[in-house]
Formats: sequence, structure tokens, C-alpha cells
Amino acid sequence: MKVVIFMYPGVTMLDAIGPYEVLRNLQNSEICFVAEKKGLVKADSSFIEMNIQYDITEINHADILLIPGSLIEYLNIAKNKKILDWINKVSITSIKTVSVCTGSIILAAAGILQNKKATCHWSCIDLLSEFSAIPTRERIIQDGKIITAAGVSAGIDMAIHLVNQLEGRQSAEAIQLAIEYDPSPLFNSGNFSTAKPEVINLSKQKMELALAQSDLSD
Amino acid sequence: MKVVIFMYPGVTMLDAIGPYEVLRNLQNSEICFVAEKKGLVKADSSFIEMNIQYDITEINHADILLIPGSLIEYLNIAKNKKILDWINKVSITSIKTVSVCTGSIILAAAGILQNKKATCHWSCIDLLSEFSAIPTRERIIQDGKIITAAGVSAGIDMAIHLVNQLEGRQSAEAIQLAIEYDPSPLFNSGNFSTAKPEVINLSKQKMELALAQSDLSD
Repeated sequence: MKVVIFMYPGVTMLDAIGPYEVLRNLQNSEICFVAEKKGLVKADSSFIEMNIQYDITEINHADILLIPGSLIEYLNIAKNKKILDWINKVSITSIKTVSVCTGSIILAAAGILQNKKATCHWSCIDLLSEFSAIPTRERIIQDGKIITAAGVSAGIDMAIHLVNQLEGRQSAEAIQLAIEYDPSPLFNSGNFSTAKPEVINLSKQKMELALAQSDLSD
Repeated sequence: MKVVIFMYPGVTMLDAIGPYEVLRNLQNSEICFVAEKKGLVKADSSFIEMNIQYDITEINHADILLIPGSLIEYLNIAKNKKILDWINKVSITSIKTVSVCTGSIILAAAGILQNKKATCHWSCIDLLSEFSAIPTRERIIQDGKIITAAGVSAGIDMAIHLVNQLEGRQSAEAIQLAIEYDPSPLFNSGNFSTAKPEVINLSKQKMELALAQSDLSD
């Protein structure tokens, strides 16, 4: 089971690492992190660099293709024809093509979500309609073989769904136990539809600040 | 707010990246990933390499010191006097010293959990007593300024607790919303005390297989 995770400068790490930590436990799993250019790729916080071993010319097939999101860089990826063409090509033969957070904007820009329901981070989900996708505020949306997950941490839930579909309930339960995923969030503030207005405003401020502090230069 | 995350070959990525994605949103946060030797550090799956920018001789202070866990390498770290001495030194002046998963075994080996209640991944929590800590099967345990979290994904819950203590409820809620942490686990199998015996057995098999496949050589 070849899981291909597309990384790019400015990626949000948990979008990628949450599903990775689940999917690495699939039977015979091989996880390939791939980027437009291999080598060091900096995350959106500037505090992390991952060493990516494959560039997109080296990966032509994925059983599972995963596109993580980012704070703002997704908009640049969504204009990068070379990357969008690669995503399209690999997605044609994938078993599942999945995204986390604003990764769905990238899938949509690649034309993969046309007239499909999709979710995204709550702060920019409406943007999906500009790429002919149907924004749907759910934690996980499946439309055919495409699964999109909401913001950042939703990738963990999505990946467990994916294991359940591919290997069945017992495997999914065992992996959920291996990562001790018995969440106990301190507050009930993780959902846009129930969060208080002042919490939504502060959350937006924190994301804007993170964006302002992000430095992707070498 | 200087958050120091200790990385080592064989580390479990989500143990580190879950809390990182929360704590990076603290006001004026600086996240320093540090290892015994800087440069590329491979995670336990062998599929990920992070480029670590600091070695332990360069970091003498942390406001928050975080020790993530691993599949088996925690036992080697728990015997590495140089690293244990460094953890002890930095922990003396920290505001909080925290661990995720088997990171608590490392804290215990450093002598930081003597006669303190602590948690750990369900599969090896009893080992804490060999280092004079008091194994306590909870998702998060706080004893003084030390907070230990259970396996892998528990670090996200722990980090939100930490933000709540340091900056208050509104900040914690806003960060929870920023990472859209409104978990919706597919099954109720993430807790050892409620998981079915066959799920526990399969989970152990998967972890043993992951360990057998882990290759930390260059």
C-alpha cells in the first residue's frame, strides 16, 4: 500500500503527520513524502524542516494520494500547473485521493472536485466554490474515491475512516488504539458552528499572526 | 515563550507534531527542535527525516520542555547519561516540563518523576514504576509543573491544557478552533480499558511489526 504525501514549503505539519501516523500502520504500507523539489522543505511555522526524498518526477503512482493544507501557500500551489498536472495524473489511478484542511483547495484547483461535495478548514471553505466544488461544512466528506477532511486535526479522523474502508473495522480499531486516539478535548470550541464569536475572532487573529511570522526563505 | 522539543532517532512524529501545532500559537512562541546531534533525525517509521537545527549543548533554557516518545528508542535514551543530565538541567528552570507517550519513561529515567503520578502509552505504562514514578492510567496527569500525556495523540489534548494554564481559556479555545480540534473518532477503541482483547492483541502486533520494520541506519 503506497501512501504518497505531497509536501511543499509552507505546509501545515499536523495535516500531514496526523494521517501519516495512522496510515503507516496499514499492512505493507510504504509512505513516500514527495515535493516539487526534493531536499529540505520548511513548514508554515518556519520552525520545522523536513528532508523530502522524492521529487514529483519520481512518483507516478499512489494507492493513496494525500494533499495536506497550509496557511496561505495552498493558493500558490493551486496556481502551479506542473504540480496540479502531477496531482491529476497520480489521482487517476489511485485507490483513494484525500486531502486535509486547505489541501482540498489544491484538489479543487486540479479539477478533481468538480461538482463534488468537499470540506476544508472553516476559515476558507467558501473558496471551494470558485473551483466548482460544493463547500460542505462537515468534518469528513467522501464523494466517490475522494475524501476531504476539515482543518488540521481532522486528518486523523479521516485516516481512521480510510483504514476502515481498506482493511476493515478491526484494523482501524487496532490502529486507533496504537495511537491511543481517545480524544478528550478540554473545550467544545473546535467546531466553527458552535464556537463563540470572540473565539472565532481570536482564532483568526492567531492564524494571521502565524502567517505574518512565517518565513519560508532559506 | 520558548518551547523546546527534544527529538531523537526513532522518535514518534505525532508525539512531537501534535503539541507543536498547538504550542506554536502561544503568544511570542519560539519552537526549538533539539537533538543530541543536530542535522537529520529519522523518525521511528524510517519514512521521515527532520532537519534539527540545535544540539543539546546549544540549548540551556526552555519555558516549556517537551519530551516525545518512541516505539523502543526511549529505552536507549533512558540510559544516555548525557541526555538525561541535559533534560534535568533544562527542566530545573522550565515553567512546565511535559512528555507524550513513552517520553515519560525518559523523564522518569532522568529522575524527574520520583514519587510522582505519571501516565504513558498503555502498552508500557507499568515500566514507570521501575524508575520510582507512580503509573496512573489517565490521558493527562499533572504533578506539580510536570505534565505527562498518554500515547501519541494524547499530546494534542495535553498541549491545549497547557495553553489554558499559561494563557487562559479564551486562548486555548481559539487555538483549538484554529486546528479545528473537534474530534470525531470512528470507533470507541482508543482507550485500553474499553478496547476489546482482540483489538489489543492486533494493536500490539502492529506495533511490533512497525518496530521490526524500523530502520534507523543512515
